[in-house]
Amino acid sequence: MKSDELASIIEKASELLTPSPEEKRNALEVLNQAVLLLKEAAIKLEFDVSIVPVGSITRDTWLPGKTDLDIFILFKKSFPEEKLGESVISIVEEAFGKYTLRYSAHPYARVKLSGFEIDVVPAYDVENALELRTPVDRSPLHAKFLEERMTPNLARDVRLLKAFVKGMGAYGAEVKVEGFSGYLCELLVLYYGSFLDVIRAAKDWKEPVVIDMAKMVSSTEEATRLFPNPLIVIDPVDPRRNVASALSRTQFYRFKAAAKAFLKSPSEKFFLEREVRQPDEEYVLSLVEKRGTYLAALLFDGLSEAPDTLWTQAKSGARKLHKLLKNNGFPVIHADGFTNESSSVLILIETPSRLISPIEVREGPEVGRPGESEFIKKHLGAENTISGPFICENRWFVLKRRKNNDVKSFIKGIIRTGHGLPKKLFSAKTKEVFECREISKIPDWALKFIYEWLQRKEPFLRELADP
Amino acid sequence: MKSDELASIIEKASELLTPSPEEKRNALEVLNQAVLLLKEAAIKLEFDVSIVPVGSITRDTWLPGKTDLDIFILFKKSFPEEKLGESVISIVEEAFGKYTLRYSAHPYARVKLSGFEIDVVPAYDVENALELRTPVDRSPLHAKFLEERMTPNLARDVRLLKAFVKGMGAYGAEVKVEGFSGYLCELLVLYYGSFLDVIRAAKDWKEPVVIDMAKMVSSTEEATRLFPNPLIVIDPVDPRRNVASALSRTQFYRFKAAAKAFLKSPSEKFFLEREVRQPDEEYVLSLVEKRGTYLAALLFDGLSEAPDTLWTQAKSGARKLHKLLKNNGFPVIHADGFTNESSSVLILIETPSRLISPIEVREGPEVGRPGESEFIKKHLGAENTISGPFICENRWFVLKRRKNNDVKSFIKGIIRTGHGLPKKLFSAKTKEVFECREISKIPDWALKFIYEWLQRKEPFLRELADP
Repeated sequence: MKSDELASIIEKASELLTPSPEEKRNALEVLNQAVLLLKEAAIKLEFDVSIVPVGSITRDTWLPGKTDLDIFILFKKSFPEEKLGESVISIVEEAFGKYTLRYSAHPYARVKLSGFEIDVVPAYDVENALELRTPVDRSPLHAKFLEERMTPNLARDVRLLKAFVKGMGAYGAEVKVEGFSGYLCELLVLYYGSFLDVIRAAKDWKEPVVIDMAKMVSSTEEATRLFPNPLIVIDPVDPRRNVASALSRTQFYRFKAAAKAFLKSPSEKFFLEREVRQPDEEYVLSLVEKRGTYLAALLFDGLSEAPDTLWTQAKSGARKLHKLLKNNGFPVIHADGFTNESSSVLILIETPSRLISPIEVREGPEVGRPGESEFIKKHLGAENTISGPFICENRWFVLKRRKNNDVKSFIKGIIRTGHGLPKKLFSAKTKEVFECREISKIPDWALKFIYEWLQRKEPFLRELADP
Repeated sequence: MKSDELASIIEKASELLTPSPEEKRNALEVLNQAVLLLKEAAIKLEFDVSIVPVGSITRDTWLPGKTDLDIFILFKKSFPEEKLGESVISIVEEAFGKYTLRYSAHPYARVKLSGFEIDVVPAYDVENALELRTPVDRSPLHAKFLEERMTPNLARDVRLLKAFVKGMGAYGAEVKVEGFSGYLCELLVLYYGSFLDVIRAAKDWKEPVVIDMAKMVSSTEEATRLFPNPLIVIDPVDPRRNVASALSRTQFYRFKAAAKAFLKSPSEKFFLEREVRQPDEEYVLSLVEKRGTYLAALLFDGLSEAPDTLWTQAKSGARKLHKLLKNNGFPVIHADGFTNESSSVLILIETPSRLISPIEVREGPEVGRPGESEFIKKHLGAENTISGPFICENRWFVLKRRKNNDVKSFIKGIIRTGHGLPKKLFSAKTKEVFECREISKIPDWALKFIYEWLQRKEPFLRELADP
């Protein structure tokens, strides 16, 4: 009965998650057309390259609605690396005329065709990981590995797993998500055998989980020594790489909990993305005021970096500020960073209140132990000593007046000096500190993040609470 | 040179600490006269008792200015315990006419004679600790043990040690001080051989220090198992008792530090009591306001207990409140209790500020571990849940609105319900909570305590800071 129910839910979900024949035909036509155009251009320009479509569409593991495609132009290993960019550009220009230049490891080109966005990426044509010249050279090897093993049933289950992690906000290896890449989803399904087997295994995951499907490393110990991650999936085409290295511990445990929730109380809604409506200022303001804490916002504007770099800056900036505040006696409830992925970063810091104690109890060495006389010398009669040094139990203590007990002015000091801030953030054209209550200062794009942040809650709680 | 200096300081101090021949003659005359009067009365009333002076005066180990004497009336072991009180009263009445009734283990009588205050205490005449019927029976045994061993040089050094611990505020076993009793000082000098040897040993004390001069317990392990104190001095007349059981860890370590300070930089001032002037309201108020913290005062009035009981109530009340506040998320800088030793107790609580965070981060179980579903059920949608439950790293968390984030109203709640307060304090005739800034509400007797408390600092810091 329970298992029938589970099967029927999975059946229904997989129907929803299968691109229609029309969508599929359309995508493949566009892909083939693009490959053809690129091949002709390469021949005309006399490049000795192969043009290969790379990506989930070629294996039927893509979710409906996908409109971005990837095509790799593979150069011989002897081809000079510094010429990869200009060569791809000339081929793309010949094939499509118009393009946008993008960068990751190398420059690559993005073109538009029949409503699709196609990334055309240069790489070297290699047989195996030992021959890799650049990180992107791995992608065609991944594609090959997966294509050789994917069956229609497995492909269906990859789509289920992708939709499942997407539904819980854990799809993608980028800094914003720190979740499961598409490749990781495909490997997990191949390894465990089905979507349901992945979920059943994940429910009982204990970190570190080591998956070495191609028997690439000598032992589990070896793997955990090499990779400090909760999930270690040795890349079957390159043992030096953990496919799950971007997965954070939080996402690892969220997935484990979501798996348990799904098995406890299966439902199609696990496969659906939650709609997050854009909240209005009034409503966010009411949430902020009801909360009663001190919510500081740091806005960095006029930045110009790739989206993932901006996310890195935002997250690491938040982490650094959190640490700095903590080390200076300011308790932090929560700190996080966000970006509009083009030019702005917003860091939110929540503390219990704007002011902390004007004085602090500082612990000194044990009575009679080294450092005693230095501690006394340092604090005895110092201008900011309120009382002490005195002995309590077996230790020295002193009460000190704090240099700063106002979190806002402390943060402003950091913004001014840059100490403890990521360099790129410090070099932002404009930097501003304000309170979330000054709601009109919050850029529109950030409202949704703040709204989500204030209401942060796992989507699968009802299921876990069920008896 | 250094050792000469030390000897000369000790010489000078011991001169100061020796009662003058006149004072000595006077005290002994009064003591002998009182013993004589009591003896005559006992004979007249046909009590079969012996009258023995007990205390430091009989051994020359008393400090100048002492005006209180002790005399014990020793009854045969067959004498009924319930008649001890009335018998002592009739003897004292016969001998002196006027007396005041006092209580410790038994009722005893206090009389005045030629400017001295004499406590006349009933006890049983026992040979050794095995025969003890009441705790006070031990005192004559102590006196006998000490008298048999005391020499003029040792007596001089006992006076030095008593003055030394008095100078640092550590003289007395009562709750107010939790320090060194006179008996403990005498035993330490007997054991180590001299004042300087006590000090030299104390400088290097490592807790637990075990002193078993009469070889009463089998081993150090046995002693530390029996007594949970930093200093264990097995009573040479009763192995079941640690003479230093009242000594707190703080006083133990203060003594250790003071010993080091004295040896580093010897000076006569170690033997002098600091003068604490009665501060005026204005000045205390200025200290409170400069401090900037929240200083709550709890005043309990109309109590009627022995001084030591009041101190116990004050100290344990402070400790309990401290714990209660901490457990409810209120950080406490310092909490302490004081009494006027007759009818009032004042508890002071210092917190960083009156208000704490309106919300708190509550940590839940690890993901997938027992208690997960209960934690979620408890907090999901609860009225006071602000956000969550959510997963961070490997744990569940939830943000909760606090029931009370105002320390004043929290304390008032405790005062009202009595939960967590010592019973005797709760039963006080009047109970009041106010802030130290409301300086006129602070009783005069408490001003000195608050003043000392705000400026708490070891008296021997300069010496320890010296190079």
